[in-house]
Amino acid sequence: MFESAELDHRIDKKTFKQEVPALRAALQAAQYELKENGKIPVIVLVSGQDGAGKGETINVLYEWMDPRYISTLAFSEPSDEERDRPRMWRYWRALPPKGRVGIFAGSWYSDPIRLRLENTLSEAGLDARIDQINSFEAMLANEGALVLKFWFHLTKEAQKERLKTLEKDPRTAWRVTKWNWNRLKTYDELQDVAGHILRMTNTPWAPWIVVEGTDDRFRSLTVGKILLDGIKRRLATPEPLDTPVAPPRPPNIDGRDVLTELKLDQVMAKPAFLRELAKWQGKLAELARDPRFKNRSVVCVFEGADAAGKGGAIRRVCAALDARQYQIVPVAAPTEEERAQPYLWRFWRHMPRTGRITMFDRSWYGRVLVERVEGFCSQRDWLRAYTEINDFEHELAGSGAIVVKFWLQISADEQLRRFKEREQVAFKQFKITAEDWRNRDKWDEYHHAVCDMVDRTSTGEAPWTLVEANNKDYARIKVLRTLCERIEAELAAAEVVEKKSKKKFERQK
Amino acid sequence: MFESAELDHRIDKKTFKQEVPALRAALQAAQYELKENGKIPVIVLVSGQDGAGKGETINVLYEWMDPRYISTLAFSEPSDEERDRPRMWRYWRALPPKGRVGIFAGSWYSDPIRLRLENTLSEAGLDARIDQINSFEAMLANEGALVLKFWFHLTKEAQKERLKTLEKDPRTAWRVTKWNWNRLKTYDELQDVAGHILRMTNTPWAPWIVVEGTDDRFRSLTVGKILLDGIKRRLATPEPLDTPVAPPRPPNIDGRDVLTELKLDQVMAKPAFLRELAKWQGKLAELARDPRFKNRSVVCVFEGADAAGKGGAIRRVCAALDARQYQIVPVAAPTEEERAQPYLWRFWRHMPRTGRITMFDRSWYGRVLVERVEGFCSQRDWLRAYTEINDFEHELAGSGAIVVKFWLQISADEQLRRFKEREQVAFKQFKITAEDWRNRDKWDEYHHAVCDMVDRTSTGEAPWTLVEANNKDYARIKVLRTLCERIEAELAAAEVVEKKSKKKFERQK
Repeated sequence: MFESAELDHRIDKKTFKQEVPALRAALQAAQYELKENGKIPVIVLVSGQDGAGKGETINVLYEWMDPRYISTLAFSEPSDEERDRPRMWRYWRALPPKGRVGIFAGSWYSDPIRLRLENTLSEAGLDARIDQINSFEAMLANEGALVLKFWFHLTKEAQKERLKTLEKDPRTAWRVTKWNWNRLKTYDELQDVAGHILRMTNTPWAPWIVVEGTDDRFRSLTVGKILLDGIKRRLATPEPLDTPVAPPRPPNIDGRDVLTELKLDQVMAKPAFLRELAKWQGKLAELARDPRFKNRSVVCVFEGADAAGKGGAIRRVCAALDARQYQIVPVAAPTEEERAQPYLWRFWRHMPRTGRITMFDRSWYGRVLVERVEGFCSQRDWLRAYTEINDFEHELAGSGAIVVKFWLQISADEQLRRFKEREQVAFKQFKITAEDWRNRDKWDEYHHAVCDMVDRTSTGEAPWTLVEANNKDYARIKVLRTLCERIEAELAAAEVVEKKSKKKFERQK
Repeated sequence: MFESAELDHRIDKKTFKQEVPALRAALQAAQYELKENGKIPVIVLVSGQDGAGKGETINVLYEWMDPRYISTLAFSEPSDEERDRPRMWRYWRALPPKGRVGIFAGSWYSDPIRLRLENTLSEAGLDARIDQINSFEAMLANEGALVLKFWFHLTKEAQKERLKTLEKDPRTAWRVTKWNWNRLKTYDELQDVAGHILRMTNTPWAPWIVVEGTDDRFRSLTVGKILLDGIKRRLATPEPLDTPVAPPRPPNIDGRDVLTELKLDQVMAKPAFLRELAKWQGKLAELARDPRFKNRSVVCVFEGADAAGKGGAIRRVCAALDARQYQIVPVAAPTEEERAQPYLWRFWRHMPRTGRITMFDRSWYGRVLVERVEGFCSQRDWLRAYTEINDFEHELAGSGAIVVKFWLQISADEQLRRFKEREQVAFKQFKITAEDWRNRDKWDEYHHAVCDMVDRTSTGEAPWTLVEANNKDYARIKVLRTLCERIEAELAAAEVVEKKSKKKFERQK
């Protein structure tokens, strides 16, 4: 992997001076085309051996390109806001918007490499990380991103020389610390680990580009040209990565499915309701203040037909909680900043810290429900969303989040009754729009979409709970009870595992 | 202040049931009007005695209104990202966008009240906080916000009753902790402190509304009606608060000013430049790694005529720094999310954490430069901006940020020369647009605006440095040297103060 970067590549001053002006002009032109195009975020990872010119390369790119459309994303110790969330959260929040270039000084590769070197990450753990990274980068590519991963390489001897040179110059001496000299000692180990990780993550949609870092001019010119070439190619390709997706499935031939099997009309008398409400709200209040909950969070999804009672159910949950502990995220049309990012970005930004609860009133499942049925996205987009969503929820669950998903189902007759009621009561009128009536016309298509969604995204770690919701009181209790039982079970399970291994959730460092 | 909230106000069930439907409908209608109007953020502070119904009120508002356009902002312990920034940062990041309602459960009042009760904030310290709050709320009102501050009041006896009732119900028992019972003991002190703060911050543009919290129905109905009334009034008032502003000042009668006095053509030979560059970059690298810098940050503003060399100067600064330590923020047109916020919001979001450096390539001074000259905002807006900016930088400086501001000045002839050069060199063409030529036609107006800006915003804690920039090398060294000297002086000054008092910067808790 590193052989061709050990040939002592060099570019003389004259050639460099001749080539740079045209390259600069072309890079800037490419930037404007990117901006005009508005669909492609460019993600450049700058990584490699110490002293191989990572910082210098970033400076060169800033000099050559239009800095208004570049951002540098650097990562040191994670903040507590980052530590309290899934590992990838800090990278999601740093993604450049479409049309811009984001240079990552340090990235999602830094931790696995470091942890593996320190031997605090097992081989199996590393493999899991690699899987996660490959899914993440495939998602980026599918969303239109150009991902270029540079690895600057130096031979051990060259690295030693480089450190010495840096140390001599007062402007750069600070870059060389004891840590760097130690790294030199572990040069071979790093080569091994990096070689393995690079090989396993060297995908067609996010290839590694190993560049010899010895000579500044060679390195800068190589990076500039590859970046330019990458942008041009990507601009010339109308469709980004076309990941294979499982085809849609027709409805079951006997007409039965998870929704038709629901007994929508459930009985719940008022006194029983009030008793149960007090019981489960009390239970939830207790659980939310359980010391074991401090390291966990709840991500709660409410989906359902129009007028199925999502809002009412959410309010019954909130009534048991401290306002500082929960957040309700009503999902509406994405903002301009959200539209400039991968689909899941606008949900990632609302992920709760540990000890907190976020309730999504509609969610990322919009992609496989309304966007599918209304044709707001391509079939390819909603088909690959199932996998992306499963990866996403796997990541959440792996970080200790308790993912609870409700589908509130009512009958077509009950919906009609509620629509009419809404139209008659002044303070309910805002809840009923022409769109609701239009959606109702597509009842069967939604029905099919919901069944597909449940089939493909109800997982062990993030199962769907289908709620029979013709009776509002019954539905509210089922939601509260399910939520409590899930939290309780998760806290208990974690405790068992913790006793065994003292660390279930591999936390970020 | 609290007398009329001790009359044991009560509303019977029947009246309540009669009044609520119309109120709900009206509140929702008001929300849609707000959304349609798109200019007014509604900021509702929910505060007061424990057990006076703060949480219940939030739940009621969620029930009565359209929750899609409400958000609740709750504040517990600040995160490290918040602690590492100016005190108000966490409130700025939580502000609701225009057209929406943000309910603050806890606010910028919580800390001063608590700290004063604990006696860790002196009377003078409290006064400084009150000044800051009044400026902040005036800014909000000037920016179009409706600010409603509710204080729920209970007599000592009623509070005791309330705590007992809450304790009995399993759904609410968790709300009552030892801390609450202790608060009861300090009831009188809280009344004193709150009374003082409420009186001092009871401004016409952000009035306090004291509401008796004993009876749920009375409290809910009162809050709902006042909120409705506030929104309606604000919608009916085309101009928000019209704060008096100092009038613009004509140019000096002798034609001399801070810019005409600059000797723009400075001499700096190449060898001297390279020597100085190495010296100051080395110095900067050292300072940025000084242990004393860990609690400080640098906010660096680069302003200047077009083609004055801001980008080049910024790059010479960056070359001395670790990519993880600095961020360059090129200021372009605001995004949709930024336009939905007060003017300074988009700069607040980029404020560095302690130990970091942010360089603004153009800045909040756009308001009194380009926006003033081009008429992008009203005269009233740019005139009040001087005060808002001074308040803003005072806040930054008070939090330990080192605010360094550069104006790079070139002559009209030099600018013409650079424009022409830019047009001829391919990789510089992106830097020159028709807009630059148009701006050049307004040279005198910009000149006048810059002089006003320096006159009104060069303060002891955030002074302007005017940089003679016809010679690029000279300008780069002056920038680097000034930056180093400012940081050095600030670190030394803080040390002296620290030795005396062991805490200069009152940090958030």
